[in-house]
Amino acid sequence: MVMFFKRSSKSVAAKEDGEKNSFPEIGTGRLEAFSDGVMAIAITLLSLEIKLPDYHGDLLGDLVTLWPTYVGFVLSFMLIGQVWLNHHAVFHILRVVDQRVLIFNLLLLLDVVFLPFATSVLADSLEIGSEARVGAVFYGGVMVVGGLLFNALWHSAIRNPSNLKFEISESVVKRMSLRFAFGPFLYMFACVLGIVNVWLSIGTYICLIMFYMMDSMSTSRG
Amino acid sequence: MVMFFKRSSKSVAAKEDGEKNSFPEIGTGRLEAFSDGVMAIAITLLSLEIKLPDYHGDLLGDLVTLWPTYVGFVLSFMLIGQVWLNHHAVFHILRVVDQRVLIFNLLLLLDVVFLPFATSVLADSLEIGSEARVGAVFYGGVMVVGGLLFNALWHSAIRNPSNLKFEISESVVKRMSLRFAFGPFLYMFACVLGIVNVWLSIGTYICLIMFYMMDSMSTSRG
Amino acid sequence: MVMFFKRSSKSVAAKEDGEKNSFPEIGTGRLEAFSDGVMAIAITLLSLEIKLPDYHGDLLGDLVTLWPTYVGFVLSFMLIGQVWLNHHAVFHILRVVDQRVLIFNLLLLLDVVFLPFATSVLADSLEIGSEARVGAVFYGGVMVVGGLLFNALWHSAIRNPSNLKFEISESVVKRMSLRFAFGPFLYMFACVLGIVNVWLSIGTYICLIMFYMMDSMSTSRG
Amino acid sequence: MVMFFKRSSKSVAAKEDGEKNSFPEIGTGRLEAFSDGVMAIAITLLSLEIKLPDYHGDLLGDLVTLWPTYVGFVLSFMLIGQVWLNHHAVFHILRVVDQRVLIFNLLLLLDVVFLPFATSVLADSLEIGSEARVGAVFYGGVMVVGGLLFNALWHSAIRNPSNLKFEISESVVKRMSLRFAFGPFLYMFACVLGIVNVWLSIGTYICLIMFYMMDSMSTSRG
Repeated sequence: MVMFFKRSSKSVAAKEDGEKNSFPEIGTGRLEAFSDGVMAIAITLLSLEIKLPDYHGDLLGDLVTLWPTYVGFVLSFMLIGQVWLNHHAVFHILRVVDQRVLIFNLLLLLDVVFLPFATSVLADSLEIGSEARVGAVFYGGVMVVGGLLFNALWHSAIRNPSNLKFEISESVVKRMSLRFAFGPFLYMFACVLGIVNVWLSIGTYICLIMFYMMDSMSTSRG
Repeated sequence: MVMFFKRSSKSVAAKEDGEKNSFPEIGTGRLEAFSDGVMAIAITLLSLEIKLPDYHGDLLGDLVTLWPTYVGFVLSFMLIGQVWLNHHAVFHILRVVDQRVLIFNLLLLLDVVFLPFATSVLADSLEIGSEARVGAVFYGGVMVVGGLLFNALWHSAIRNPSNLKFEISESVVKRMSLRFAFGPFLYMFACVLGIVNVWLSIGTYICLIMFYMMDSMSTSRG
Repeated sequence: MVMFFKRSSKSVAAKEDGEKNSFPEIGTGRLEAFSDGVMAIAITLLSLEIKLPDYHGDLLGDLVTLWPTYVGFVLSFMLIGQVWLNHHAVFHILRVVDQRVLIFNLLLLLDVVFLPFATSVLADSLEIGSEARVGAVFYGGVMVVGGLLFNALWHSAIRNPSNLKFEISESVVKRMSLRFAFGPFLYMFACVLGIVNVWLSIGTYICLIMFYMMDSMSTSRG
Repeated sequence: MVMFFKRSSKSVAAKEDGEKNSFPEIGTGRLEAFSDGVMAIAITLLSLEIKLPDYHGDLLGDLVTLWPTYVGFVLSFMLIGQVWLNHHAVFHILRVVDQRVLIFNLLLLLDVVFLPFATSVLADSLEIGSEARVGAVFYGGVMVVGGLLFNALWHSAIRNPSNLKFEISESVVKRMSLRFAFGPFLYMFACVLGIVNVWLSIGTYICLIMFYMMDSMSTSRG
């Protein structure tokens, strides 16, 4: 349907500009589909990082010792899920996108695609124990960069009001801007906590993700 | 098309509530696309768990000794396929979703994404032999949790009648509720059977999946 | 748009049947999306089977000795691509699907998802040399089963004329039936050739796929 | 919406040609979805090539020594991203496709799917050091072939003016033809540079990708 509106607006535009504006506006449909695909794959590849060690006579014991991997798996799953929900919220209010949005979207996806590796680093470092802080800070760094890129995507998307759907009010945009802007700072805070204690850091990540989910649950259908 | 109705209903809502309800209703389109993506990937990643051992002079023999992996592959493939069919049935009758549905959907997908690992645990345990029951109960536990999350998703989806498409009758909803409610109990039963005998358990899983498929085949076009 | 017609036909049906036929007809949209997803992933996972051996001082030599893997990769890529083109052709003429189609579609996808493993078996057997025939027959068997399942899907799809789009003529359906029916026989022939000589078999597979592609290129646009 | 126009044009066509042209025109919807899927998966699988070595007492050091893998990852990510943007641009101006386009599209995807392997070859060769030029030329070769296939796809797509959307002007088509035609030559140039020095080659690839992105950013909304 997005396409329907794009199409009609395009015909109008074509009439007004003639040859000049001959390249049509880009709807959000295929961008969403591609991004959904990348995020769906990244979230599913997380499971490939969970691997049984070679059998030593105690399968149940092996399953238990994998706990750092489970922690990393659930944490990153919820995180990518949260990115997807926010991505969904952003493109839900957009009518068209331009190349700048396409490119920042690509950079955000690059960060998302890097997460399964960062997760395995975190899980490995938890298993090693003595290096857990390196893993936590590395993982946190990837999250901070992701948060910054998300804000860059958001601001490139809304910088031109004609990109938005007509019925979106300014107050909605402002509320979302504020909400997204907090992300990198909170992740940075959790990342720095990782220098002190890795579990403090992981606990904070989990709280942040749950808080965002609860929050969006309560505000989305005001 | 889903989007078309969402759009029109949204405009109506916007007029009624003014600023208050400024955040638009969420159609099911992108949620379905994302879920389809995740399930499609999880179902395909199952094949990565099938690996030829290093060559010892008998390729045919190696292919035969892989039978536990084949069993796990087919079982999990049909299982995820069944989840997809049911997911399809649920979202087919929904008009819009809210954040709670989005989140329970994410949790269900987390369980689905975990299945390739659970499948490899089951296949490994069948190969080891003496530990087969651990594998069967672990695998069954993942299925039980999946069944419970599916019911949670279903009830969060239908708790608000305005989420449903207009022409869906109450009797259809009741029939589906009953059908889904049985799932976790049956999987729990098969899981407990795994403590007695792993093949009893696997046989029951296969029967359950085939029964559900047959059943949905006969009832879907009343 | 598929959905548009489904929707309208559904409203009509709802009026005619009242409560009885309360479960709506299923459009092909989500089935296609899911199948596309699975085939896209299976076709891409093929690349994971290409792996550099550990470095022994001659990277170029290593890249050359991987040739059986390249053969398997290209063969399976074109094969899944061909399945996708045919799948596309089938669902292009369908208006709605029922549960039987959904299930045969799942079984076809199960075969497709198994192909990356069969490809690695073929490539390994070519590398081993003495076991190449085992690999060729195993691979051919998977193709034959796939061809049979495709025909099962096709016949379950067209068994009810009301499943088809209105403007599809019977002659088109007959032509497609004939074309698909040849598949399993030709693959079976190539599979049996594999017992005599593996390259005869692989050459035949490649010829078949190219013939089908050329053929569809010439017939598709009247 | 694509489908809407396809559908209407099809009905018209059906009336004009009767039985003769009974096979309907193929919209771009499913082709785009499949291609998006393959490119989304290929771009995400790149992350699987990044693997921590076994732990030797220095996690931070291990993360640093992985730098060739990061370079390959970012380079190939931006490259596939660029292919996707161009692919998007091509299908954005197409109204329908024929079998020839479907097949060249498949061949382009084959090249894209091969890229994660080529990337791992490049990264391995950078790690080995002495063999870096082999890796750079191999990688460059895959890019050159990709560029040639993209041009083949483009020219098969536009060879029939009725494939284009009605409002697309000839000047847009010419501009795009010129832009795409440069690609293979530039990649060939960067590939040959790899014989001299691998970093010269990689630097050129990065410049090319960034130039194309900047360029498309400035011209897309003229």
